[in-house]
Amino acid sequence: MSKPKNDTLLRALLRQPTEYTPVWLMRQAGRYLPEYNQTRARAGSFLDLCRNPDLATEVTLQPLARFSLDAAILFSDILTVPDAMGLGLYFAEGEGPRFERPLRHEWEVRGLTPPDPDVHLRYVLDAVAQIRKALANEVPLIGFSGSPFTLACYMVEGGGSDDFRELKTMLYRRPELLHHILDVNARAVTAYLNAQIEAGAQAVMIFDTWGGTLSSAAYREFSLRYLEQVIAGLKREHGGSRVPSIVFTKGGGLWLEAIAGIGCDAVGLDWTIDIGAARKCVGEKVALQGNLDPAVLFSTPDVIRAETAKILAAYGQGAGHVFNLGHGISQFTPPDHALALVDAVHVLSKPYH
Amino acid sequence: MSKPKNDTLLRALLRQPTEYTPVWLMRQAGRYLPEYNQTRARAGSFLDLCRNPDLATEVTLQPLARFSLDAAILFSDILTVPDAMGLGLYFAEGEGPRFERPLRHEWEVRGLTPPDPDVHLRYVLDAVAQIRKALANEVPLIGFSGSPFTLACYMVEGGGSDDFRELKTMLYRRPELLHHILDVNARAVTAYLNAQIEAGAQAVMIFDTWGGTLSSAAYREFSLRYLEQVIAGLKREHGGSRVPSIVFTKGGGLWLEAIAGIGCDAVGLDWTIDIGAARKCVGEKVALQGNLDPAVLFSTPDVIRAETAKILAAYGQGAGHVFNLGHGISQFTPPDHALALVDAVHVLSKPYH
Repeated sequence: MSKPKNDTLLRALLRQPTEYTPVWLMRQAGRYLPEYNQTRARAGSFLDLCRNPDLATEVTLQPLARFSLDAAILFSDILTVPDAMGLGLYFAEGEGPRFERPLRHEWEVRGLTPPDPDVHLRYVLDAVAQIRKALANEVPLIGFSGSPFTLACYMVEGGGSDDFRELKTMLYRRPELLHHILDVNARAVTAYLNAQIEAGAQAVMIFDTWGGTLSSAAYREFSLRYLEQVIAGLKREHGGSRVPSIVFTKGGGLWLEAIAGIGCDAVGLDWTIDIGAARKCVGEKVALQGNLDPAVLFSTPDVIRAETAKILAAYGQGAGHVFNLGHGISQFTPPDHALALVDAVHVLSKPYH
Repeated sequence: MSKPKNDTLLRALLRQPTEYTPVWLMRQAGRYLPEYNQTRARAGSFLDLCRNPDLATEVTLQPLARFSLDAAILFSDILTVPDAMGLGLYFAEGEGPRFERPLRHEWEVRGLTPPDPDVHLRYVLDAVAQIRKALANEVPLIGFSGSPFTLACYMVEGGGSDDFRELKTMLYRRPELLHHILDVNARAVTAYLNAQIEAGAQAVMIFDTWGGTLSSAAYREFSLRYLEQVIAGLKREHGGSRVPSIVFTKGGGLWLEAIAGIGCDAVGLDWTIDIGAARKCVGEKVALQGNLDPAVLFSTPDVIRAETAKILAAYGQGAGHVFNLGHGISQFTPPDHALALVDAVHVLSKPYH
């Protein structure tokens, strides 16, 4: 379990000096890559792809063959945990994720238990181990999970939502029921991420996709508190190396100071906040990851370079910045534009280090 | 054009002392009210309802008959202006608004001109005049428009969007084209709101529904700048009375200080920001309007009262607060819960004045 040859990402997440700003892209293995679409067609469905460690390894490595990315991220879905709880994850064609058995009744909520990752999420751990082997220690592998709150959104709604009516009705009418779900989720996510670390993940990220739909007070009570519970339970080291943690609440720019205080090593930023202002807000507490608007990749290589330069300048001198998009890369992105971005980050960031 | 008998809203918007905190609800005339659905069924479509001053007056007054609201708001759509530019607004069943002729080519953009409200938006001005008459000076009437940027989103996309790909592609590839649209929109919105004021609107609100999807820098360049242009061109007085202006950028919590500096009298808040923190941020510059999560209305009268009390306490003592939801009231709201909210605001706010 030695250090990767390129450990720039791990050092940046721990706010240690690096030679340049490392970069990876959320959803970097995805539909904007023709080779991904070919593998996915071979696999059958998206879930078949997630559940087949050979194919999950193949797609995880595809973007690394094209771009000089500083990290790989496990190819999987954020909803594997509630699926392993028995809710029946599926994807209706052209729609987002859905559950066959959402939590509609109190007895269903009371019956929830955290799944044993070694049994129910074996396919993920196998993928982690196999990807690590295939990476041959070139760059680190990031593991991930959905946040307790974001998982609860899908578990209660049964799918995505514009207004999270079911979830918020529970939040305001039966907060103790939602707290029960969140506690089970927090324990499940902790065990899941620790199992990914044991299997070889060298950093972990928690995606709180829907925390930003809450009021300031509700965010603290129903999302942040359980993110903190997960972080507190994570293995800090494995095989003699620190395993940094990243927390990303989309739409969480107003709560950055609070997020930076829960014990994570780095905070992910969406594109709505100025990263210079964000750095002032969090001070020396955490590294920052982000935060180019993914829509910039619809423009031209020149504009991509100019917008990248602005973010690097806004972050400024010194350690603690991991470049990324502020959200997952769009399926409509020309791969050459992702290439222009990765190269621009590497070249333009050197003067800041 | 004398003052309304209940001018609490107008005083609060101008940060003058009031006896209690005034309250109205975004989309207060809407589908959660059975009487609205009856009128709408008689009208035919939503657009038929907007275009018929008799029926628009009828639905504008419906919520005032049920609840002791401190203002009426013109019943109309935010997209009347681009419709008057010839883009062909329509509503597909079960979907949001769409345009028959979105802006797809440069010649279409170059051909845009601000419509003459007296000619092309006569039905809105007639509705304003008729509502004023029907209100008999009991409470003030608020006029409104979509923001230049939000109108541009729909005009370029042709409808709503998850990612505003068309709009953002133009923003990053052809910013000068988007600026042209925004300048036309700003002139059109200014003329439109001034015409509403002439027709009798006693306060005006600009809805920037999609500004919050921009990066911090792009928000300033492509949305805020044109909001400022509109505000600068608005009539400040009519018939001897000040006409306060309210600017609401959904998801704009990070940019509050900048928004408060563009010359508007009040800033609308969505529910993600703590209103006490918002007040500290804007200081004495503007009044604040908001900001209960509309989902609180799915709970119970007791919870509604408790959450209302929290917002009143967070704002604290003194003038300058107009209570509202942080977004439009949901069609799934029980009308009795809106009643509980309005009454709670009136009763619980007295100690703060």
